[in-house]
Amino acid sequence: MIRVNFKSHNKEIECNKGENLLEIARKADIFIDAPCNGNVSCGKCKVKLLKGNVDAEKTRHISDEEWEQGYILACNTKVISDIEIEVPSKLSSSMHGMKIEGSDSKKDREIFDRAKKIIETHQLEFKTNIRKKYIEMEKPNLDDNISDVDRLQRYVRNHLGYDNIDFRLDILRKMPIIFRQSDFNVTITYVQKKNKITIINIEDGNTEDNLYGVAIDIGTTSVVVCLVNLFNKEVIDKASSGNAQIKYGADVINRIIYSSKGDGLETLNKAIIEETINPLLENIYIQNNINKDDVVTLSVAGNTTMTNLFLGVYSDYLRQEPYIPPFLKSPNLMGENIGLNVNPSAYVYLAPCVASYVGGDITAGVLSAGIWATEENILFVDLGTNGEIVFGNKDYMMSCACSAGPAFEGGGISCGMRASAGAIEKVNIDKYTLDPSLTIIGDSKPIGICGSGIIDLICQMLIKGLIDRRGKLHRDIKSKRVRFNEHDMGEYVLAFKEEYDLEQDVVVNEVDIDNFIRAKGAIFSGAATLIESLGMDFEDIDKVYIAGGIGNNLNIENSILIGLLPDISRDKFTYIGNSSLVGAYLALISKDAKKKLEDIGNEMTYVELSVYPSYMDEFISACFLPHTNVEKFPTTKLILEA
Amino acid sequence: MIRVNFKSHNKEIECNKGENLLEIARKADIFIDAPCNGNVSCGKCKVKLLKGNVDAEKTRHISDEEWEQGYILACNTKVISDIEIEVPSKLSSSMHGMKIEGSDSKKDREIFDRAKKIIETHQLEFKTNIRKKYIEMEKPNLDDNISDVDRLQRYVRNHLGYDNIDFRLDILRKMPIIFRQSDFNVTITYVQKKNKITIINIEDGNTEDNLYGVAIDIGTTSVVVCLVNLFNKEVIDKASSGNAQIKYGADVINRIIYSSKGDGLETLNKAIIEETINPLLENIYIQNNINKDDVVTLSVAGNTTMTNLFLGVYSDYLRQEPYIPPFLKSPNLMGENIGLNVNPSAYVYLAPCVASYVGGDITAGVLSAGIWATEENILFVDLGTNGEIVFGNKDYMMSCACSAGPAFEGGGISCGMRASAGAIEKVNIDKYTLDPSLTIIGDSKPIGICGSGIIDLICQMLIKGLIDRRGKLHRDIKSKRVRFNEHDMGEYVLAFKEEYDLEQDVVVNEVDIDNFIRAKGAIFSGAATLIESLGMDFEDIDKVYIAGGIGNNLNIENSILIGLLPDISRDKFTYIGNSSLVGAYLALISKDAKKKLEDIGNEMTYVELSVYPSYMDEFISACFLPHTNVEKFPTTKLILEA
Repeated sequence: MIRVNFKSHNKEIECNKGENLLEIARKADIFIDAPCNGNVSCGKCKVKLLKGNVDAEKTRHISDEEWEQGYILACNTKVISDIEIEVPSKLSSSMHGMKIEGSDSKKDREIFDRAKKIIETHQLEFKTNIRKKYIEMEKPNLDDNISDVDRLQRYVRNHLGYDNIDFRLDILRKMPIIFRQSDFNVTITYVQKKNKITIINIEDGNTEDNLYGVAIDIGTTSVVVCLVNLFNKEVIDKASSGNAQIKYGADVINRIIYSSKGDGLETLNKAIIEETINPLLENIYIQNNINKDDVVTLSVAGNTTMTNLFLGVYSDYLRQEPYIPPFLKSPNLMGENIGLNVNPSAYVYLAPCVASYVGGDITAGVLSAGIWATEENILFVDLGTNGEIVFGNKDYMMSCACSAGPAFEGGGISCGMRASAGAIEKVNIDKYTLDPSLTIIGDSKPIGICGSGIIDLICQMLIKGLIDRRGKLHRDIKSKRVRFNEHDMGEYVLAFKEEYDLEQDVVVNEVDIDNFIRAKGAIFSGAATLIESLGMDFEDIDKVYIAGGIGNNLNIENSILIGLLPDISRDKFTYIGNSSLVGAYLALISKDAKKKLEDIGNEMTYVELSVYPSYMDEFISACFLPHTNVEKFPTTKLILEA
Repeated sequence: MIRVNFKSHNKEIECNKGENLLEIARKADIFIDAPCNGNVSCGKCKVKLLKGNVDAEKTRHISDEEWEQGYILACNTKVISDIEIEVPSKLSSSMHGMKIEGSDSKKDREIFDRAKKIIETHQLEFKTNIRKKYIEMEKPNLDDNISDVDRLQRYVRNHLGYDNIDFRLDILRKMPIIFRQSDFNVTITYVQKKNKITIINIEDGNTEDNLYGVAIDIGTTSVVVCLVNLFNKEVIDKASSGNAQIKYGADVINRIIYSSKGDGLETLNKAIIEETINPLLENIYIQNNINKDDVVTLSVAGNTTMTNLFLGVYSDYLRQEPYIPPFLKSPNLMGENIGLNVNPSAYVYLAPCVASYVGGDITAGVLSAGIWATEENILFVDLGTNGEIVFGNKDYMMSCACSAGPAFEGGGISCGMRASAGAIEKVNIDKYTLDPSLTIIGDSKPIGICGSGIIDLICQMLIKGLIDRRGKLHRDIKSKRVRFNEHDMGEYVLAFKEEYDLEQDVVVNEVDIDNFIRAKGAIFSGAATLIESLGMDFEDIDKVYIAGGIGNNLNIENSILIGLLPDISRDKFTYIGNSSLVGAYLALISKDAKKKLEDIGNEMTYVELSVYPSYMDEFISACFLPHTNVEKFPTTKLILEA
């Protein structure tokens, strides 16, 4: 056995000679960002060898200077002696770290308000089918000695008017004890279906006021959990963190590949349930002093892969032709089946998926965007880790997936990160000094850059003449912020470590820009192909809704200038944020909304872009700033020619 | 920490100074018989101290000679230094050991035949609502790319005619993999309810022939498991063993007390599920080469306490006035909920209980005895660890419980044991030599004596003049088989160790006889009180059915002579064996029989004997051989006067 000491984490683990360093880190539960899942292609799993010998190769991701200092790629390293390793802190925590972020009451209110608007506009009922009722039963005696279950049944029949009761074993196990503790005065939580009620909780005394639900958005990169008071339907608290599956790959394809090998499926299921959602729930329970048994219903939205991995369902057929998903509609599920830290009898509802690459996050997003009820033509763009697009109105809804990759959430970008504290979310570049002015989330030091910041940066670099339309830095620029390494790869320094007392400079390099251009190209060409397939063009769009975790400060103008969004009237655009979460929340608090969501799942048509011969040409043309055909972006053209 | 070494088991365990030796043995998973659950009253947990010091007291159960040799009661011993202990082998394995006994094909046929007779006599349908169907679905392609669930749903709708399918998460998890393995040719197992089917298994290829159910009788002392082929309804195999809960008390009261403290409930639940039933199932699966997932339905009968502990439901209120059971009718249960080693979606049905001390074993027994359909007055006596009695016919059924204790199954008797290999099941005593002639189950050496043997022995001792009508040995008898210890307690030696090369003599002593007389007194007085409460007497009985694990060779004549059963016409008596198991089996293989069983549960009346002032007098009068009023037993009177 060999010992690997992660100095940065004060953690030592034993392994076999020849084991892969990335795998060892995963075993030790040390997060090393590896969006490409160990294919030696992204270069993000760079760590520093402090002591000992390894079998590693210098790749294009490592500069001569770094190689000298001991930097290696964990995924490309075999351990051959006892070693000491330092994992750069930005990799291990800030980038996609599991730090739980608590509630921001303004935003919580926003979810409620947005949902309420949909409810009111469309006259949906603001009502769930879960009830709580305090009951005072007669106490047993030798003459009235029916069983506990029969006593409850008798009460329900005589006082509530239902013929039958049903319950699960955990309720039966609680019953005799709680009946005596409370002297037969208990509060039952139940779901009614015709003349029968299913009891999902029994509590001592009158607890009618405590009834909660949880809405969850499972993103490939980020997960958000909302605690909802089922009485007034208000969002009580919200918590979010990275998706702990990230260490097994940044996008759905890499996750699926990982899940298909060995115990990968179990590992990824555990990562989302036990390492992501349950800690978020636990955090919310403690903050709000509530009992997990009071959480009796959940509504979950995620893409098709996330939905499958959430249930631990084998997902490899999603990526194999003919791309068949195991299921689309929510099966009957309870908290206990899934291992969630909620009432074991809690109902778990999953927003319906449409196809292997258009999932419940999109149907939920469409629900909250109200597309299903409008006569206007709406273009809905989800800038998540995948890029999904929906175009339609109340009469039809077409959807497609663009495999844009994780760039909009900071993935695949050297210093990219989620839109959370420390992320640069806005950038402006002074046209004379070429220095940037930064807006940073949480007024902290800049740790990295999130999607909205990257859009601003690239736009600014383009219009301030730092990069050409292919995204390459002009070689003749004289600025301390622009530099080239020995492989002639250029980078722009957003923040020098000396400026902010950082461990490393925050930079964006030409590979990052290239990655981002391909991501935005995928979105634009996807939208163009989808709309063309209907014989329409961008001028036929009445509104554009942009959803996703790209950051609240998405600059629409800049997004148009770089060719991510079409150059049409600005007042058509609205950034709607995490529409998937709002949709999940709507389905949680309104039976009618859930019914609409099911209809959306049934009615939405999936368009497979790859069968359109024009799509690949569109994509290649869109991999420029703003586009090979600059005529499509007259505003950019004007600025560049100015 | 102190070390306790169980030499007899080659097992050492650490414990704290002052810990109780019986508790230590339980922790070490070493079985020491303790029917009184550690109350220092039964004296059965006698072990030998080989080395070290303990804090123990000499009790009436330990002779001077034994005390000299190091014998102590485990329940009455605190460990104060490292010690070495020998557990007499008869205590640790043969008495109530967990040895699994396999099938005896003659008896298996018997269960089937007896059930068939009921089915045919009463024209019940020989049919369950579980089906298997081999289906060949169309393979998916890019044009027919609906999800796996939708594909199955479409097939079911188009070819089987049901509108909807339902399934649990484990089925969804299997589905994508088995669909591809089998090239979409699978066998589904399902339960139909109206226009919907619930899928409980999916298998690769055509497995229509493999469909199994299991009937289980959970006795306080013994547990029997029957594997049933659901196609031809035949009993394929049967396995039985002691109930592993025995180490926590021999009767239901001691079990309930144990279950109410600390993690006792969990311990007892684990003992019945994981240590008793699952090993029996595992054994049967291996013997018959079947897969646990093919076991899709179970029917379980046990007394009210056993039924509650089987589900892990808190049972202490069963023994507290007003004696309220948590539930009587089977809740909706699946194998997975209970932790059974069967298909996770398997349906588990529990025979209904009637009251805290008349349970599912009795309703199942009554079902198999056909009382519910006859005009004759039937007395049904279950000689299990409790004694339950039913009297009635198709118009009414009265039931009561007698707390007879475990004597009929060998409990509370020094050398008592279950009716299994090595048990003396028949005894005759030579009137001149006073030597016994023994019939031993399995033609082996005598290890102990079972219920039928004790009845024979006591009857023989009475009519051969060895004991008086109080059960005391005559002090003037000269026989090497009769001896008295220093406390003047007499015993009769059934088998000298030298005769059979045993570790110890097999004896029955005056305390054993006294225990047995109280047990038989409880049964007789219970039956008498129940019948009297209806204004009838024993002459009104048309038939007597005797059930229970007392042994197949129950001698009716001897049972009458000692006053266990009433002295009425012999041709009215039938020993019907394990009627609880036959009832559970009937409910497994016939929907109609299950319906009848539910009716029996609803219609049977429970009579609380303790509220009858005459009951206690009756009981005291019955604690003689055959009775204080010998006129009630004219046959015995005749013999004794002869």
